[in-house]
Amino acid sequence: MIAGSIDDEATMAIQSTPETIQVNGTTCEPADENDRILSIQSHVAYGYVGGKAAVFPLQCIGYDVDVVNTVNFSNHTGYERFGGTRASAEELSSIFKMMDEIGLLSRHRLLTGYIPNAAALEVVKELAQKLKSRNPHLIYLMDPVLGDSGKLYVSQDVIPIYKEMFSFATIITPNWFEVETLTGVPLLSLSALRNALSILHKHVQHVIISSIPLQPWLSKVLPETMQPPASTDNQQAYLLCISSSRTIGTSSHSAVHARLVPLIAGYFSGVGDLFSALTLGHFNPSPTPSDSKPHSATQTPLSFAAAAALHKTHSILEFTNAFAARLPPEDRTSTDDELDAAEPVRKLKRMRGRELRLVQGQHILREEWREGQGKDLQFWDGFWDSV
Amino acid sequence: MIAGSIDDEATMAIQSTPETIQVNGTTCEPADENDRILSIQSHVAYGYVGGKAAVFPLQCIGYDVDVVNTVNFSNHTGYERFGGTRASAEELSSIFKMMDEIGLLSRHRLLTGYIPNAAALEVVKELAQKLKSRNPHLIYLMDPVLGDSGKLYVSQDVIPIYKEMFSFATIITPNWFEVETLTGVPLLSLSALRNALSILHKHVQHVIISSIPLQPWLSKVLPETMQPPASTDNQQAYLLCISSSRTIGTSSHSAVHARLVPLIAGYFSGVGDLFSALTLGHFNPSPTPSDSKPHSATQTPLSFAAAAALHKTHSILEFTNAFAARLPPEDRTSTDDELDAAEPVRKLKRMRGRELRLVQGQHILREEWREGQGKDLQFWDGFWDSV
Repeated sequence: MIAGSIDDEATMAIQSTPETIQVNGTTCEPADENDRILSIQSHVAYGYVGGKAAVFPLQCIGYDVDVVNTVNFSNHTGYERFGGTRASAEELSSIFKMMDEIGLLSRHRLLTGYIPNAAALEVVKELAQKLKSRNPHLIYLMDPVLGDSGKLYVSQDVIPIYKEMFSFATIITPNWFEVETLTGVPLLSLSALRNALSILHKHVQHVIISSIPLQPWLSKVLPETMQPPASTDNQQAYLLCISSSRTIGTSSHSAVHARLVPLIAGYFSGVGDLFSALTLGHFNPSPTPSDSKPHSATQTPLSFAAAAALHKTHSILEFTNAFAARLPPEDRTSTDDELDAAEPVRKLKRMRGRELRLVQGQHILREEWREGQGKDLQFWDGFWDSV
Repeated sequence: MIAGSIDDEATMAIQSTPETIQVNGTTCEPADENDRILSIQSHVAYGYVGGKAAVFPLQCIGYDVDVVNTVNFSNHTGYERFGGTRASAEELSSIFKMMDEIGLLSRHRLLTGYIPNAAALEVVKELAQKLKSRNPHLIYLMDPVLGDSGKLYVSQDVIPIYKEMFSFATIITPNWFEVETLTGVPLLSLSALRNALSILHKHVQHVIISSIPLQPWLSKVLPETMQPPASTDNQQAYLLCISSSRTIGTSSHSAVHARLVPLIAGYFSGVGDLFSALTLGHFNPSPTPSDSKPHSATQTPLSFAAAAALHKTHSILEFTNAFAARLPPEDRTSTDDELDAAEPVRKLKRMRGRELRLVQGQHILREEWREGQGKDLQFWDGFWDSV
């Protein structure tokens, strides 16, 4: 400890006005509890998934983040082996209870990610319900972490609990597989996509489908202005990010925005966790939360936040991918289950080389975000037509 | 997840030279495992002590930090009540074991702080021993967290283990009370201070005493150039930070540097954790680790790192204190055990208002540090004379 414990008057020059504090020439804004996020997700010692992919980026853009760890693992499960423990429902409950009793529970912003099992998720559900009942304007981004690319990586019994939690959520950020799992609708056509969004919007005002591969059915219905550039290599795959905001208290359809980004080949972990965190970090609803009409000519608060999150996440991925491409050959092998099985260390090295380069790319995270830089999501005119 | 799992060639423009990678115009340095730190200390959901005070600052200055949590609490113990659990020795052991097996253990830099009990500390000791035996150039900063201001806040049985661990440590950063506890020498005179440093240097090359109150005995022996400015308010208290580097393999005395900073009144938690992290982050030993001669005319690598850490820590404290001073009166009460006992929420509010403002003051953490800005530690000429 450097400071002693003598407690009397402050000793250095402080000049202040009602709005700012000046200490030795540096401005210090007064507390804004709106700049505090309670984040509940996994922790790994090494690498960047869950809280390790979410907390530092949110701190970089100015949030105090309260960090509750749902697991404490050595590394992410992509390495196939890991050590450590899951937090029990009782542990989580005791942490939330104490934070509540001594007035440390964030009233404004809540972020939840990977929760290991149904009992723990029930505890998080109760917390979300409590916070929402205390503050109807709570901004709760729920990332319903279930799986990816057709594979569940949680137990089945969390699915109904996530559905029950929809009514407390402000924003949800499922990937395409999670949308299918939560709605029961395979995303194979525009009408299926509309159907899935309608189901989710019954309970949640703001929905982002973080990534849908640009398959032929989607390519066919995508507005011309959102299509890949004509010059594109035919082999290049794309992912579509869709934001959909419903105006509360009306029967009108949601405002849908979308943007295509090139798929960066290779499996990178923590990308969804980073995207969700940045979405919450950049989300600033209108003063009246029921008002989700465009806050500029063409954007909603959600499409604005999604654009910032998509741009920064994609830039971090490019940065990471470029790093991985420069590693010695043995650290940047391609995914090949047979070769991996024959030589287990092969996969470990590849995984290590693909950990997100958040620290080295922190200038990307800290970029000030404005509309109109050519990276906005575009309004999908006519999305709901002919329904 | 945004990225899919198709795995073939990278898709974006990468221009590279042997030393750097350029992605879309941004430079990306190749991996440097020397820029990775394994940090082992406490975790709290709310507020900034232990890992929460150490990790973000190290990330801001460019380190990948691997984070192993020795406890998972709701908040720091200054709030008097807290929820959560301590990691068992078995849990810590399983995490280290897995990290080792899959090649994720940092080879270059290790930081340890609060370890809850002797069994857990034994596990950390074994780890430090293993890392040191694998890499004799390991930079291990051990903060022997025992207590402060005359009070132990760990159990007695960790003390002998910390002493056994000295031989693996590169730098230790005890406060004055921890120096007294570890050496058995009450710091009441210059010769006692010399004696304590000699005892610690028997095992450790670099010692920082992070803060000693400027009591009359110390004031009397302090070189004139280090004394408080003559204009100073007589009521202003000061703390001295001392760095002491021994040259390995010689019988000569250590090079001692020091700097005085004004005591900022009030009890702030996490300050020592922040200071230790920044010291390790700014420590760059000479290419030959046995060479700790001044790397400039007047500085050692240790005095350089201590100056950076002291300046940044003190600036964050000033920033935090200025913030606390602007809170409503009920959130910035003075320390008064009787009033606190009568109205428990009084202390909670004060604690909350004094959480370090690391996020809001991150520009301070990121400042590039150079010698000669008037904030260096000064060489204490004649410190060992007349011994």
